[in-house]
Amino acid sequence: MKNYNIVLLRGDGIGPEIVTEAVKVLNRAAEKHQFTVTYDEALLGGIAIDETGVPLPEETLQKCNAADAVLLGAVGGPKWESQPGNNRPEAGLLGIRAGMGLYANLRPARIFKPLRDASPLKGDIIGEELDIMMVRELTGGIYFGDRGRKMVKGVPAAFDTEMYTVPEVERIARVAFNLARKRGHKLCSVDKANVLESSRLWREVILRVAKEYEDVELSHLYVDNCAMQLVRNPGQFDVVVTSNMFGDILSDEASMISGSIGMLASASLGDGTRGLYEPIHGSAPDIAGQGIANPLATILSVAMMLRFSLDEMEAADAIDAAVAKVLDQGYRTPDIYTEGTKKVDTVTMGQLVVDNL
Amino acid sequence: MKNYNIVLLRGDGIGPEIVTEAVKVLNRAAEKHQFTVTYDEALLGGIAIDETGVPLPEETLQKCNAADAVLLGAVGGPKWESQPGNNRPEAGLLGIRAGMGLYANLRPARIFKPLRDASPLKGDIIGEELDIMMVRELTGGIYFGDRGRKMVKGVPAAFDTEMYTVPEVERIARVAFNLARKRGHKLCSVDKANVLESSRLWREVILRVAKEYEDVELSHLYVDNCAMQLVRNPGQFDVVVTSNMFGDILSDEASMISGSIGMLASASLGDGTRGLYEPIHGSAPDIAGQGIANPLATILSVAMMLRFSLDEMEAADAIDAAVAKVLDQGYRTPDIYTEGTKKVDTVTMGQLVVDNL
Ligand SMILES: CC(C)[C@H](C(=O)O)[C@@H](O)C(=O)O
Ligand SMILES: CC(C)[C@H](C(=O)O)[C@@H](O)C(=O)O
Repeated sequence: MKNYNIVLLRGDGIGPEIVTEAVKVLNRAAEKHQFTVTYDEALLGGIAIDETGVPLPEETLQKCNAADAVLLGAVGGPKWESQPGNNRPEAGLLGIRAGMGLYANLRPARIFKPLRDASPLKGDIIGEELDIMMVRELTGGIYFGDRGRKMVKGVPAAFDTEMYTVPEVERIARVAFNLARKRGHKLCSVDKANVLESSRLWREVILRVAKEYEDVELSHLYVDNCAMQLVRNPGQFDVVVTSNMFGDILSDEASMISGSIGMLASASLGDGTRGLYEPIHGSAPDIAGQGIANPLATILSVAMMLRFSLDEMEAADAIDAAVAKVLDQGYRTPDIYTEGTKKVDTVTMGQLVVDNL
Repeated sequence: MKNYNIVLLRGDGIGPEIVTEAVKVLNRAAEKHQFTVTYDEALLGGIAIDETGVPLPEETLQKCNAADAVLLGAVGGPKWESQPGNNRPEAGLLGIRAGMGLYANLRPARIFKPLRDASPLKGDIIGEELDIMMVRELTGGIYFGDRGRKMVKGVPAAFDTEMYTVPEVERIARVAFNLARKRGHKLCSVDKANVLESSRLWREVILRVAKEYEDVELSHLYVDNCAMQLVRNPGQFDVVVTSNMFGDILSDEASMISGSIGMLASASLGDGTRGLYEPIHGSAPDIAGQGIANPLATILSVAMMLRFSLDEMEAADAIDAAVAKVLDQGYRTPDIYTEGTKKVDTVTMGQLVVDNL
């Protein structure tokens, strides 16, 4: 029987509660689909600052790099906001992305049929289905370029550098084209090539890599236009690929359009099969410890883990299907509750998914 | 009687047609409110490339810098897409912003009551009213920083530099705070201070300038969160101030949320009263010359010109009111036409506004 080593980074706020439910689901999936999982725990974010003084202890990175995959709850909270910038929970997040070489962030923005009414967009704008795969470059660009302060013509200034190398764009392009090939065969590359030199390089490389993927229909949008199109007609998108900074903005916009932020999972991948999986929502310190957080995004992150890191496709599909069933049965955590549905807490929701597996 | 010197940059595509209607309206306003206008014409964008070889001829910049205000139609089109980057119509736009020192871009995103249904957002998300003033820094940041290509560890790379000086942030902050003071007394500053050094400087300066405006309620949002909030609850915003790049993205997103892109005006201001006014929509080459373009955004840009450059507040209010009346009367150009309203062409729409003045 195959065994997988998974590192759990429970993190802060609601992180621990939702990871517990996701582990229950993963264990049940393992039983059914005949593999075993061994877990290790490590510290990241605020809790790591509290216990070790830094948001990403060396030991955490070592464990994650040795694991088959990593499951993250959420990090951050007001408690650590007075920390200096380079020692805040977010710094742990950026550090682990860089330290594990996770250059491809996959963020599906989907609408779950029973939650369709939660979208802030009108029904005729949403259309029949919404299923966008946002692919964000995650270890390059202005997030990791040179930055600092200096005097410019006698006045104080600050700068950051957006930089991309050809190989950095090539590898994220391949991830995006490969995903498009497995989905609707459409890829939209987003840049600001009418202004930025890094975007012109980005577009050149995308066009070059596109020659290897003639079965994928490629289009280009400027980032400002993409921000509009996501609101105007999100159904036009299949896979979208963009830089770290633009991806940060556009993938959040796309998630909000789905109306189901509490439901959305993400994967951060590098070369090989290793990956880090996490819900896209935050640590929600305001509701932490109350047992009312929605564990479904974390559970769906486990499904992505099974799909992208562990190659357990059947188990992945089974979890997706179980979540869909629970929604169809009308169960809702408070964040997605509407009149006429059945309100349940975090643990019950986790158990319902287990029972439907 | 006061006389104002206005430079018209008709530009490309539908630009000439819509500027003609706006001039009709401005002339009528002048008559009624007792001032005179003299016009000069200059070339910008594609037409400037065709006639002089460059998108921003020296003569154009001189004329604009000598005028009381500038009215621009729209620039660009497929015809000039094969031009090298630094000689495309957009380069003319960036050149005139820099050359006139127009560091503050004001883009109101409004919903006109009779067009409320055009918003892609649900009625309960839009709420009673939507009236956001986006203030985008326009002559700094990554648009104008150092850029280029270089080899990095043996591979080709391209870079752009996001840079802000303290005085650059101070002056845009003052524009935004002053606007907030005249409106709802709320200002939201958008940055990415959890990652970017330039954003940390931005936030420091905003906080310092805020001390001069204790009557204005200041908040801060990260750009990714702002992209979400615009979709989730746009009514929470009054004035928003942000950098050139973030403003490009967020102001387009905000306009699309209004659902009335053909109706939205903009002002680009520097020190003193000089300014450039233009509709936010593009040159729409596909419908150019057909007489069906919507001139209302350009007409409303004239109202902004009267308000911000010429200090003719009554004339400005009168134009806004005339546009509202024409909409109330049910007249629509094809882009905003819905069943039960009266479809009119560009010239008729211009005349209707004149008649209602
Ligand atoms: C917390 C922050 C640094 C981070 C980012 O900008 O990458 C977050 O917004 C995200 O998208 O994961
Ligand atoms: C055409 C382009 C260079 C320009 C910009 O990015 O500033 C446009 O998108 C705008 O917002 O006016």
